[in-house]
Order: sequence, then C-alpha cells, then structure tokens
Amino acid sequence: MNISTANALLISIGNELLSGQTVNTNANYLANEMTQIGFSVLKIITIPDSKEIFSSEIKKSLSEGIYRVILITGGLGPTWDDSTASFLAETLNVPSILNSEALALVTQRYKELYEQGLVESAKITSARKKMAYLPEGTNTIYNPVGTAPGIIYKDSIHNTMLYCLPGVPKEMKAMFLILIPELKMISALEESFYFETEFFTSFTDESILAPFLLIIREKYDVWIKSLPKSYQEEENIHIIISSKGKTQNEAKSLVFKARDYLSELISGGEIEEI
Amino acid sequence: MNISTANALLISIGNELLSGQTVNTNANYLANEMTQIGFSVLKIITIPDSKEIFSSEIKKSLSEGIYRVILITGGLGPTWDDSTASFLAETLNVPSILNSEALALVTQRYKELYEQGLVESAKITSARKKMAYLPEGTNTIYNPVGTAPGIIYKDSIHNTMLYCLPGVPKEMKAMFLILIPELKMISALEESFYFETEFFTSFTDESILAPFLLIIREKYDVWIKSLPKSYQEEENIHIIISSKGKTQNEAKSLVFKARDYLSELISGGEIEEI
Repeated sequence: MNISTANALLISIGNELLSGQTVNTNANYLANEMTQIGFSVLKIITIPDSKEIFSSEIKKSLSEGIYRVILITGGLGPTWDDSTASFLAETLNVPSILNSEALALVTQRYKELYEQGLVESAKITSARKKMAYLPEGTNTIYNPVGTAPGIIYKDSIHNTMLYCLPGVPKEMKAMFLILIPELKMISALEESFYFETEFFTSFTDESILAPFLLIIREKYDVWIKSLPKSYQEEENIHIIISSKGKTQNEAKSLVFKARDYLSELISGGEIEEI
Repeated sequence: MNISTANALLISIGNELLSGQTVNTNANYLANEMTQIGFSVLKIITIPDSKEIFSSEIKKSLSEGIYRVILITGGLGPTWDDSTASFLAETLNVPSILNSEALALVTQRYKELYEQGLVESAKITSARKKMAYLPEGTNTIYNPVGTAPGIIYKDSIHNTMLYCLPGVPKEMKAMFLILIPELKMISALEESFYFETEFFTSFTDESILAPFLLIIREKYDVWIKSLPKSYQEEENIHIIISSKGKTQNEAKSLVFKARDYLSELISGGEIEEI
C-alpha cells in the first residue's frame, strides 16, 4: 500500500462521533477522494473536543514526519465546543489573532445569508467574530456554504500541509473542492498515481479463495482484497485489486496483470466485472 | 466528557476503510453501544493492514494506561491480509500457537456450515486452520455467524482488556453481544453510567444559540452540543445534552436540570422533544 510518499492523515473531531450519535461519513468521503488523488491515507483518527488529546495527536503526527498532508474536520463553528482554531494555536505555540481575511470572509458570508433571508441580522456578534480568530501565521480557506473559514498551516520543518475544515458535511465537501488543485499538485510532485479495479468471482467461500489471493499478492506489487459477506448470504465474493505507480499507466498495468493472472488461476471465465 | 475512568479505545483495521471503499459502520456501532454501556470512547483509530502501524498503535495505547478496554475489529479471516492474530503475537512478544479451543471452534463452525450446505467441504485446510493460530496466553470468543474466533487478551500491568473481533459487521455484532455482560461489569466497577437527551429548538442560526449553550456548559457538568445543518436547509437546530454519573439517576438528573435551564433561557416553549 505504501510505495508512495504522498501519505495523508485524517483527523475527525467531535464528541458526537465518539458517542456513536453521528456516523463519520466525512472520513469516508475524504479517504476516498484523497486515495483517488493519489494519496495513501495511512491513518484516520477520531478524537473528542479535548485540547489535551488534540494537541497530543497533532504534535505526535507532525513529529513523525511521514505525512505530506493532515486533514482535520470539525470544531470550526460558533459554539463553545468549536475549539479547533484555539487548540491549534496552543499546539503550535502561537497566539490566536483576529485574522483580517477571516473576519472579512465571516462578515461577507453573514451579509450574504442575511440578504438571502437565512439569518435575522448580519451583525458580527462575538460568537460570529470568534470564527475569525486563527493561529498566527496561518491562512484561511473560503467557506462558500457556511460561515466558518477553514485554516491552512504549513509546517516547513516536516514538509507537512495541515488543513482544517468544518465538520458539517456540505461545508466540508464544498471547501475540499477548493483544495483539490493544490492537493493534486502535492501528490503529482510525489509521482504518486492510484488505480483500482473490482469484480466478482464465482466463489462464496473466502477460505477457498484465500490461497489464490496469496499467490497474486506474492507475485505482484498490488493490494488484493476479498470482501466477504457472512456465510448466510451466499453472495459471490467481491475482489478489489489496487496499486500505485509513478504514472497512471504504470498503476493500471500492474492491476490488470494481477487481475488477468487471478482469472487464469481460478480457471478462466469466473470473473465478472462490476 | 471524561468524569469516568471507564475509557475505551476502538481500533478498526482494514485498507478498504482508508481508501474509502467501505464506510466504517463498525466504529459507529461500537461507539454507540460502548457509550450506552457507560464507557467513554476517547479515541477511534483506523489503520491499514500493516504490522508496523498495528504494533506501534497497540504498544502506545497500552502504555498510555488510560484505557480499560481496547476493541479491535478486522483482520481475523482466512486471507493473506487477515493478520491481526499474528500482528498481536509479535506486538506482545509471544509466539503464535495453534489454540486448541480456537481450532475446535473453527472445526465446529465449518461442520455446521457444511451441514447447512453453505460450504462445499468441512475439511480444515491451511487457510481455515490459520484462524486458529492465536497469540500464546490469549483466549477465544465464539463466532456464531462466521468462522474466525475472536481473541481476548488481558494486560494486567495496565489493567486493560483487549478484544479482537472480525470486521464483517454481522459477525462483529453477534460477537459483541457475547461480550456485553463482561463489558457491563467492567463499566459498573468504574461506577460509570451514561444518560442523554435530545430535542429541537426553534433556532436555525447556531451563532445566536451559541451564548446560551456556553452558559449551560459553564453551569452544569454536562456535554451540550448543537448539531447544525447548513444554512441553506433552514432546519431547526438539534441539541444533545449528555452526562455521566455514579448512578443512572445522577446522570439523568444532571441532564434534565441542564435541559430545563436551557428551556428557561431561551424563553420557555421553544424546545420540542424528539
């Protein structure tokens, strides 16, 4: 899985994720998008709205020096528990300052929402202003859906880009789209391209298929995975083969070679493309 | 969130979770169940099928000494990448041995599946036998749905119970049910009980609600959270108040006091129970 150096870490913040009230669909969305862009997502961490845990995870993750990108979601809103910006300032040991660009973005968004009749006033209250206090030395990401700007921090020592996005899925997705060109550039610089294929076999019993997967795994530099259902369902087993390469064609060619050899091993026409 | 010492850590293993192919519904299910039982889930980690990352996370998590329970899902099946048992043996620095109880469970399950016509043979092949190799000194958990037994390891030094369950949701859930009495006992020993309530307010703008939530937060030892949608949706904001106590009544009483005061603050009838 790890032939690329374009490693990414996803951190989801929110007590509601740890109490099971909310399914972490953000992590799934970002894992999928980042993989398609060419990153290896090495780890996903979900943590509560706790300064100690936040600081410890960020410090450790930066100092490991293996991540090119750290994507953080959650904790950017106007309520008391939305503390990502202040936690980050403390973690980086810099002051939280009223960021003029962030304040302009917040002001602009409330003006727009007021004009659309979605809020009762455009006044910048202290709860609203709070969203414009960012760690010194960081940059903002425009939020086209909600009101809280995102945060960009570049750690030059570890060559890591850290991005903070809101936890509300619509806002997170709209802001991630803005980041894609930059992320694609980072991944391209690492010469990392991803390709995958998936198909059904005629097998329903994973223990019978297992030795064939091992042969493929040992012969090719691909990741091959069978996705079993439970035995009760008697469903044909689904296979995913994926790889990375320095070009898209290199990744694709490896994956197809592995797939063709598996097809041969399990005697021909037993693969059904999805 | 953290008045209890019944802290839990969830670790999900599987490359398919990190590439976004699969949504981590297991973590959500377990987070919810563990919270209801009285645990504080302090962290959820998702990692790939990698020995180095597995060992590093398990060693670190045990040595932190703050978790009463570590629940691991994934990597127990018959295929080449199902390596949780062998990774755990290496991490604990003990040999992988053919566990006679595990072998009996695997043998029994394939016999049952054969009798039900769900597998073609009950023969214990090497792929099947692989699931019965467990770290020395660990115990098994019966798998009533699939074939891979679970693993129980007790770390007496850190007072941590570590449970490994399969990643297939049906199997994981059936095996988690078996563990519930033991988990309830652990949580009860820590005198940790959880209660939550949720309701809608008449607010659609989180920045207006924010100061009231802060007042509640500062006055009561509860966790209060507003769950915003995006502004476009104009949906009433949903609130969750939860707390822990040494008895269920203590937790419940705190939560209701906080809810009643919030209702008063935002002038009476503006709360709608869900």
